[in-house]
Amino acid sequence: MKVAIAGASGYVGGELLRILLSHPEVEVVQVTSESRAGKPVTRVHPNLRKRTTLKFSCLADLKPCDALFLALPHNKTASLMPALKQLAPLIFDLSADFRLKNIADYQKWYGYTHPHPELLTDFVYGIPELHREQIKTASYVAGAGCLATATILALAPLFQNNVVEPMVIVEGKFGSSAGGNHPSLASHHPERSQVVRTYAPTGHRHTAEVVQELSFHQVPQVHLTATSVELIRGILATCHVFLTQDLSDKDIWQIYRASYGPEPFIRLVSERQGIYRYPEPKLVAGTNYCDIGFERDPNSNRLVIMSAIDNLVKGAAGNAVQAFNIRMGWPETTGLEFCGLHP
Amino acid sequence: MKVAIAGASGYVGGELLRILLSHPEVEVVQVTSESRAGKPVTRVHPNLRKRTTLKFSCLADLKPCDALFLALPHNKTASLMPALKQLAPLIFDLSADFRLKNIADYQKWYGYTHPHPELLTDFVYGIPELHREQIKTASYVAGAGCLATATILALAPLFQNNVVEPMVIVEGKFGSSAGGNHPSLASHHPERSQVVRTYAPTGHRHTAEVVQELSFHQVPQVHLTATSVELIRGILATCHVFLTQDLSDKDIWQIYRASYGPEPFIRLVSERQGIYRYPEPKLVAGTNYCDIGFERDPNSNRLVIMSAIDNLVKGAAGNAVQAFNIRMGWPETTGLEFCGLHP
Amino acid sequence: MKVAIAGASGYVGGELLRILLSHPEVEVVQVTSESRAGKPVTRVHPNLRKRTTLKFSCLADLKPCDALFLALPHNKTASLMPALKQLAPLIFDLSADFRLKNIADYQKWYGYTHPHPELLTDFVYGIPELHREQIKTASYVAGAGCLATATILALAPLFQNNVVEPMVIVEGKFGSSAGGNHPSLASHHPERSQVVRTYAPTGHRHTAEVVQELSFHQVPQVHLTATSVELIRGILATCHVFLTQDLSDKDIWQIYRASYGPEPFIRLVSERQGIYRYPEPKLVAGTNYCDIGFERDPNSNRLVIMSAIDNLVKGAAGNAVQAFNIRMGWPETTGLEFCGLHP
Amino acid sequence: MKVAIAGASGYVGGELLRILLSHPEVEVVQVTSESRAGKPVTRVHPNLRKRTTLKFSCLADLKPCDALFLALPHNKTASLMPALKQLAPLIFDLSADFRLKNIADYQKWYGYTHPHPELLTDFVYGIPELHREQIKTASYVAGAGCLATATILALAPLFQNNVVEPMVIVEGKFGSSAGGNHPSLASHHPERSQVVRTYAPTGHRHTAEVVQELSFHQVPQVHLTATSVELIRGILATCHVFLTQDLSDKDIWQIYRASYGPEPFIRLVSERQGIYRYPEPKLVAGTNYCDIGFERDPNSNRLVIMSAIDNLVKGAAGNAVQAFNIRMGWPETTGLEFCGLHP
Repeated sequence: MKVAIAGASGYVGGELLRILLSHPEVEVVQVTSESRAGKPVTRVHPNLRKRTTLKFSCLADLKPCDALFLALPHNKTASLMPALKQLAPLIFDLSADFRLKNIADYQKWYGYTHPHPELLTDFVYGIPELHREQIKTASYVAGAGCLATATILALAPLFQNNVVEPMVIVEGKFGSSAGGNHPSLASHHPERSQVVRTYAPTGHRHTAEVVQELSFHQVPQVHLTATSVELIRGILATCHVFLTQDLSDKDIWQIYRASYGPEPFIRLVSERQGIYRYPEPKLVAGTNYCDIGFERDPNSNRLVIMSAIDNLVKGAAGNAVQAFNIRMGWPETTGLEFCGLHP
Repeated sequence: MKVAIAGASGYVGGELLRILLSHPEVEVVQVTSESRAGKPVTRVHPNLRKRTTLKFSCLADLKPCDALFLALPHNKTASLMPALKQLAPLIFDLSADFRLKNIADYQKWYGYTHPHPELLTDFVYGIPELHREQIKTASYVAGAGCLATATILALAPLFQNNVVEPMVIVEGKFGSSAGGNHPSLASHHPERSQVVRTYAPTGHRHTAEVVQELSFHQVPQVHLTATSVELIRGILATCHVFLTQDLSDKDIWQIYRASYGPEPFIRLVSERQGIYRYPEPKLVAGTNYCDIGFERDPNSNRLVIMSAIDNLVKGAAGNAVQAFNIRMGWPETTGLEFCGLHP
Repeated sequence: MKVAIAGASGYVGGELLRILLSHPEVEVVQVTSESRAGKPVTRVHPNLRKRTTLKFSCLADLKPCDALFLALPHNKTASLMPALKQLAPLIFDLSADFRLKNIADYQKWYGYTHPHPELLTDFVYGIPELHREQIKTASYVAGAGCLATATILALAPLFQNNVVEPMVIVEGKFGSSAGGNHPSLASHHPERSQVVRTYAPTGHRHTAEVVQELSFHQVPQVHLTATSVELIRGILATCHVFLTQDLSDKDIWQIYRASYGPEPFIRLVSERQGIYRYPEPKLVAGTNYCDIGFERDPNSNRLVIMSAIDNLVKGAAGNAVQAFNIRMGWPETTGLEFCGLHP
Repeated sequence: MKVAIAGASGYVGGELLRILLSHPEVEVVQVTSESRAGKPVTRVHPNLRKRTTLKFSCLADLKPCDALFLALPHNKTASLMPALKQLAPLIFDLSADFRLKNIADYQKWYGYTHPHPELLTDFVYGIPELHREQIKTASYVAGAGCLATATILALAPLFQNNVVEPMVIVEGKFGSSAGGNHPSLASHHPERSQVVRTYAPTGHRHTAEVVQELSFHQVPQVHLTATSVELIRGILATCHVFLTQDLSDKDIWQIYRASYGPEPFIRLVSERQGIYRYPEPKLVAGTNYCDIGFERDPNSNRLVIMSAIDNLVKGAAGNAVQAFNIRMGWPETTGLEFCGLHP
């Protein structure tokens, strides 16, 4: 199966390339980058040395293929979509442009008027754990936001089972790769290294997605806060919710196991001893896992759920390949076997 | 003025020593460490090379002095207090043993029965911004907990002015020095480096202090969560509260300025541009500053207040010296002039 | 094929386990750890969650198997070897105990009298790039030291071709995992984080191996220096040699290509542009690659060769699996396909 | 005394400002930055909040003052020097433009033709430990390069006493602040974090200075190699030399003590126990110290000298203030009292 990646010089595009190059069912036939056209991909992604001799093309030179992965900027993707749809019968879009169902949310959270609202309904929201059945037959899949993925996976079982109050506070801690590959003063090593910087106390864009996906019984009040920490890859979402019923730890585990038991990429973390009692992004770096754990406050009805992913893998490229595998009927873990490193 | 430090081989004791060695009004005459007795302090605190030739003594050899700083373990300090009170007319205790007014809290949060409850009322809770008047005449000052200090300073003006709901969620992000100087698997570099580890989702001991100090009008519901991040020194407390009145940014700044305007060690951070718009622990490393800033959620009544301190300085040693300066009538910033580094 | 790992709770043992669990030709039947016997391996190596339900056994309970990997302490391994040889026809030993051919070197560099000198000749020195033919038929393979591997691979082509002076200075920069998993003050995060600590200016133990393996035409004068830097995995060996002939860059590349052209795990790095012009340990973390590059001093006959490996993979576990693949006649890269991450 | 800083928005300029703001003998009257003119300095250097309300001026608006500190780019400084000399009777230049005595070195090492060779002899090379007497009466002082400072201070006693061979290999390990404050892909956090990147294997510009300053008895052959490591501030220079005489450790200490005994900012590190046996940049961060230690190879005549400085302080701003203090006859440590942090 011949696949192409548009926008492959960025970090998400590079991860798509890394994963798809080792995927036994596909051949990566083309990768694009406007700024790096003509250059070997290994100059940008040196981990791929000895794995590929591909060079970047311009988007304008993109040829038809069997499946197309898009890692292009927000807003630009939406404008190009009608043309891109001519190139491949299957499209996996990793921008934000087709995640939201409510057209007004683009203006509110992203600050632009969506140029092709008529295409929104073509796309399935690409979290397999929630929308596997739809993905099986989808032609167009919209990848979820990275903090949104961590948050939704952490909270969906609770909201689905209607056992928590609508108000939720989510503290996302981010590695620097979430900011993309464009240098700026904020990402300049002497200024970025060793920080603990709450850069988005309120108003995080992924709020719209989280509200959309957790509205099982009512519209939740979702408060996201984003803090940069010293880390390259990874997100830890620490989610604070309040139980409406007096559930025991066992009850809560049962809810999570019922939702995620057979999921290949969800790991429920329930160690009682040692130092690895809760999810940590370091342990999932490079993998498609989402690790989930929780603690009930013995003194109140607060429940703290922690969820760790690699923002570039389960939060973007890996999740898209998982959806691709589902769509094609291949084993879901194909190409996504890396289990991560310790230490 | 002759001062001594009991427990000077730990990180807090080392900071006391660093600060007091450059304090123009005092002479450090004795420092104790049971495990390092007889060794030069520079073997443990190599930053003090060329500054002192002091050696550690045993606690049993501690001589009377004018002021005594205690950086001994919790529980042990309380047991020793009657004896220690014989040695100096002024005591600054940095353990948790004399912070709490409610004797039951020791059992509940620290898991021990306080051996000398009769001494609790002798101590002033040592946050100068809240208790300066009492400190001026106090003989015994109990240092506040580090996360407690960051949280209380962040929230006191709001609770004092009764403008927020009683429920507050505080996410503390911690550097590794907060765990002390005793090696363990949790602190082993390959296991600790690059982590984002929510190690205390609920049940943090400093809850008791925060509740005690913020109970101006009612007893607040304080939810603390502690996460280790890649950092040596510093705490960022990100505090989520909900306004009971529709206050503008300007109104809120006015509340903070009224409380903290002339405070020498509180810096209100209100940059609108650039990368340094909010408090960050990196900027206060080595200093006695507490930087405070906030953001109002434009879509709800949530207010996010951020507060950054160096856990070893404003969260421990520096704060104690500030209290000492107040008690002695010296300029409050004496010995605490270091302004921190950039980058 | 049934394999066992003795000493699997350490970092090298954990890597063996990670790699062998995904190796299509083998089944890991037993893993030992004295301190963790009876516990699931995932408590120690949490990256293996959802990959294995193995528990640690005691060494005393080790059953016969088809191949045995040893990640036990130096000296102890040598004592146990006669007994261990009864358990498996193939042994891959990752300790230092069977690397050196000269019995006196154990006293000189490791400070102990080798208990079984008669077994030394049974072992092949396990760097496939130098000893592939011997490994093909070996029953016993001794893994090379991590700094030794990086240094030998960097310098062998030059010494083999006799184009450099015998004196060489090698500066090895180390991540913290090279020190093993035992906590100490030196590895305590607040003390170890952010250091640049030349902890072994002279006298590094791997000197003996490097001298042994580079003595193609004469005995080289090898000066190793080891510096700890802020990193978990990886070694960069920066090697300074002096050319005895006036070789151009092209001549030198030719020498390296002649030696390593078809090697599956050597990558010669010769980018002239961009930021990835030289080898870097970060790029090989988790992989079995050794990246090699060089620069000729335009003002003298100095040649600087840089060589980067993951100390736990090409410097230990991965290299052993590579040797295992060679011995068994499987494709050399089996189980070692991970290409590393960017960024 | 009224001082000004030209080029105060960079990291060296920021350090000059930090130090001079607390210097009891001076008033900082003006600071310049072309890119930030009109903005408060605290927007760039947030550590100075509550310490100053200064704003940046344009260089063109610089007024006459008593002493002028220059932290402007190489080459540009030389062009401006005739005009700058009109503004102040004392100039401390931190660029490379007046460090070298041999005019041809500018072409060779910096790639430009010096516009004002006639001014070179006006400047004293600003390392106080070597040129204190000249500095006492100098009007113009040229700050030394950061790696040059660490290397020269490490090696001067040996070359002065003529006890080593002329060939020296110096491995400098660098924090990211040495690269300045201009963002680029090389300094982009995801690309720069966690690296061990030998970016200048040969040809480092500071070679010229080191040769110049160590030519006591003969012209040394200086080989510098520069490696970026994960660190913001600091340089460790690990210097390999070969003794021409059989000196004991004691002999070597005597040489160093004779040279540096009374020096206020040189600390000779000779711990035999513990983890702090050698110099480390982390311990001198923010300070004007240069820590020096060594180890003799018991198996050869190699001597390894380690030298640690903060590149922005002893390697630039602090060293300039030390020279300023000397020139003015103030105590040499004035304004430079900060002793660094542990941990």
